[in-house]
Amino acid sequence: MAMAVDLNSDMGEGFGVYALGDDAAMLEIVTSANVACGFHAGDPLIMHRTVELARAKRVAVGAHPGFLDLWGFGRRPIHGDRPDEVGKLVIYQIGALQALATSVGHEVTYVKVHGALANMAAVDDELADGIARAVRQVDRDLIFMVMPGMATERAGERAGLRLAREVYADRTYDDDGNLTSRKKPGAVIHDPELAARRVLRMLEEEAITTVTGAKLPARVDTVCVHGDNPAAVAMARTVRAVLETEGVAIAPFSGAAAAGS
Amino acid sequence: MAMAVDLNSDMGEGFGVYALGDDAAMLEIVTSANVACGFHAGDPLIMHRTVELARAKRVAVGAHPGFLDLWGFGRRPIHGDRPDEVGKLVIYQIGALQALATSVGHEVTYVKVHGALANMAAVDDELADGIARAVRQVDRDLIFMVMPGMATERAGERAGLRLAREVYADRTYDDDGNLTSRKKPGAVIHDPELAARRVLRMLEEEAITTVTGAKLPARVDTVCVHGDNPAAVAMARTVRAVLETEGVAIAPFSGAAAAGS
Amino acid sequence: MAMAVDLNSDMGEGFGVYALGDDAAMLEIVTSANVACGFHAGDPLIMHRTVELARAKRVAVGAHPGFLDLWGFGRRPIHGDRPDEVGKLVIYQIGALQALATSVGHEVTYVKVHGALANMAAVDDELADGIARAVRQVDRDLIFMVMPGMATERAGERAGLRLAREVYADRTYDDDGNLTSRKKPGAVIHDPELAARRVLRMLEEEAITTVTGAKLPARVDTVCVHGDNPAAVAMARTVRAVLETEGVAIAPFSGAAAAGS
Amino acid sequence: MAMAVDLNSDMGEGFGVYALGDDAAMLEIVTSANVACGFHAGDPLIMHRTVELARAKRVAVGAHPGFLDLWGFGRRPIHGDRPDEVGKLVIYQIGALQALATSVGHEVTYVKVHGALANMAAVDDELADGIARAVRQVDRDLIFMVMPGMATERAGERAGLRLAREVYADRTYDDDGNLTSRKKPGAVIHDPELAARRVLRMLEEEAITTVTGAKLPARVDTVCVHGDNPAAVAMARTVRAVLETEGVAIAPFSGAAAAGS
Repeated sequence: MAMAVDLNSDMGEGFGVYALGDDAAMLEIVTSANVACGFHAGDPLIMHRTVELARAKRVAVGAHPGFLDLWGFGRRPIHGDRPDEVGKLVIYQIGALQALATSVGHEVTYVKVHGALANMAAVDDELADGIARAVRQVDRDLIFMVMPGMATERAGERAGLRLAREVYADRTYDDDGNLTSRKKPGAVIHDPELAARRVLRMLEEEAITTVTGAKLPARVDTVCVHGDNPAAVAMARTVRAVLETEGVAIAPFSGAAAAGS
Repeated sequence: MAMAVDLNSDMGEGFGVYALGDDAAMLEIVTSANVACGFHAGDPLIMHRTVELARAKRVAVGAHPGFLDLWGFGRRPIHGDRPDEVGKLVIYQIGALQALATSVGHEVTYVKVHGALANMAAVDDELADGIARAVRQVDRDLIFMVMPGMATERAGERAGLRLAREVYADRTYDDDGNLTSRKKPGAVIHDPELAARRVLRMLEEEAITTVTGAKLPARVDTVCVHGDNPAAVAMARTVRAVLETEGVAIAPFSGAAAAGS
Repeated sequence: MAMAVDLNSDMGEGFGVYALGDDAAMLEIVTSANVACGFHAGDPLIMHRTVELARAKRVAVGAHPGFLDLWGFGRRPIHGDRPDEVGKLVIYQIGALQALATSVGHEVTYVKVHGALANMAAVDDELADGIARAVRQVDRDLIFMVMPGMATERAGERAGLRLAREVYADRTYDDDGNLTSRKKPGAVIHDPELAARRVLRMLEEEAITTVTGAKLPARVDTVCVHGDNPAAVAMARTVRAVLETEGVAIAPFSGAAAAGS
Repeated sequence: MAMAVDLNSDMGEGFGVYALGDDAAMLEIVTSANVACGFHAGDPLIMHRTVELARAKRVAVGAHPGFLDLWGFGRRPIHGDRPDEVGKLVIYQIGALQALATSVGHEVTYVKVHGALANMAAVDDELADGIARAVRQVDRDLIFMVMPGMATERAGERAGLRLAREVYADRTYDDDGNLTSRKKPGAVIHDPELAARRVLRMLEEEAITTVTGAKLPARVDTVCVHGDNPAAVAMARTVRAVLETEGVAIAPFSGAAAAGS
């Protein structure tokens, strides 16, 4: 059986003089770049540079909108905005990246929500709907990157969006399909080889194995890897190498996702 | 002779809980709305509400990008960015507004630079080129709103953009075509009737009369009026009334500008 | 029986060109000004102007620190910071106001936490401790303004701070001593005369009457009134007038609070 | 002859998740830490950590206020604020750091203006006066760190402040006492040994030798070194080592400056 999967990573997460992560290295490894859009990280110059580099490396570009919270890097849950209001935040950020992508001859093909906003939307159907509708209002051809089984997936389906189902290479899963809290021991996988084998198994089984051993059927279109420190980059490289060695093609998800939805 | 002109005004200049200007009143008066894009003023919710209202009132929408300076409302000259870097700021802001306009079924048809950035670009050919090229990189059909005779007009022409030439209803002009400094006595016109007559004359003569009495040939596509206080709204209303009484049609500039460039 | 009470109001809540509330009117009514410190509202120029005016009007000045969330005006709960981290936010804001007060010959005598941060601290002992300890670390003579019966009062007592117990003129109370949610009908009192009578009763009974009719013993040192719209200013004026007519002296709480703790 | 000099370095220049510079290394080398105050860099948590570390290392702490421009790191000249308005920015930032220093049992003993604001103030007597008066309004015992011969030094003298005269280890000087523009070849010295020798000579001659060979009499109380990259840290270490080898004591300037003014 021929298998293919996309690898995605967060990028462009600096701000002004501040740098974060090794984007150049990651653009050699992944096939999709989640680009910060200026609210939790990123700025127009960094976004421009990132999409330009992604274009040169033939890496797909997605908007990675987050809360307006540079100080907290979008990792702090902020309550009190209505789902449709959050939708406007998302629209703004997508549009900003689209224009910058256009300016260098590239294109935004997908949207993946960032940080605390993503965590909140994964378990809140109304919030997830607000976001999915917002994506659709910008461009119904945008692919919505979601965690299989979570509220964002359901919202994307309700909004009629094409979906890219994502798993994390370095995280374990609870029985509800959500990531095990980082506070629990073992929730984060540090062994690159083990992470790679887990991903391979998810692809082969078309299921996520949870911490209790349960299997959640899940089509996997893309695997999230990180680049914010040298160990993360090394893990990403190993995941890619193992997958390729095992005959899995690494390629952007756009087509696959389109076909499947 | 049949004459027509557009009226434009800055809008959407609030932020969060803060309101500024009487947008609802101005949308009854003008035919083009310059919408703040979140850097010197404006936020995603206000931008959304403004483009939605503009659509309902059949008012054209333009991006009104400025410096990243909410505290200074974009009125403080900030030096040290290269023209192409400023261009990225402009692209980001245009894109953000485009997506919000798209989400409500409206469209961004023009770009007018705001505040200190506009003042700097009016007298700096390199900066103006950086901005004009940025506009073109986003969408070559965007109309660039400029002051006749200034660096922005020349840059727009070099970039091959369609132009909308703008005059101010309530300001006098120096011989170089620039606005007389607000610090000089008489630089700001407070009498609505007088302001209206001056605009009428500029339209009839196709020229700007400067403070020394010189005439600068200038095609006038649009007239800038303000809405940030009740007196300004009253002046805008008078300018429109006088123009209409004198047989000038008030209509968006898009077509006219297209034909003329 | 001779009674005295302080009236406090939020002030200095503009930012840059944005204005909010009628501070000049409120400074004629209240005896204590809660000054926004630049995180949820306020900026150095506005803070300076506010403390200068307060000094001229012999109004006491308190720091009114909030979340770093200008866009949400500090009204959105932001989770994820540890109590001691929130404490640093508070220290920063107090210090900024202290220096501006010093520069005009005035003095910060108290601290009242703003908005969502206040709401969260009212029901979270650990967060309240983080804030109370922070206040004490800056200056143990600072008075901590709290709602009687809530976590902030307990934290202030644990930290050994002098306290000013506060009630709201225009809000009803639940049996747990917290404000009734604004979403419930009747939670906000709009009749100035009624509001004034309720305050008078709380002062006379030394108790808060809740929505169920229960009485919560509560010493009242200060009454919060608002100035963000003309109706609010009118209510504040009425509350003061009724209290004075009934023989209640309106005076800063500093001394009284010191004696009582 | 016994000589002593202070070494100072900018610190606490991160923001949120962003780190910048090797503060831990620099706190082993310098005797004074210029702490960013949250406008161009820094935040309450970083400021707290920095003053706490400085206290543990017995390093003096100064406020390092800059423009409200995180994106530009305070390096972009921003025009349009009056000198007294800039003064309020400075007061706010000093106060914020003072309170954080107080909270850990340390103390702010001096003020050094950052980046573009420092460059502008060095050649603008009115702006320099606005800043010097602001420093004095907060606390007349604060020492004002200035470049000898520039407007800030004159303003500090007019304001009756104690001064700490500063030279840069890695920069050449023009005949007007200002730093040679970084754009000119040779303006930045990269050889640590050469930088150290230049400092030693300035201390011995009590004069700055300019690029034309002219000697500007200048008492040197402190030497600025950098820590934003490994090479900078290495240079700082060499400067200190050479000075100590040559018999120059490295010690905070507070006393010396007090005596001399």
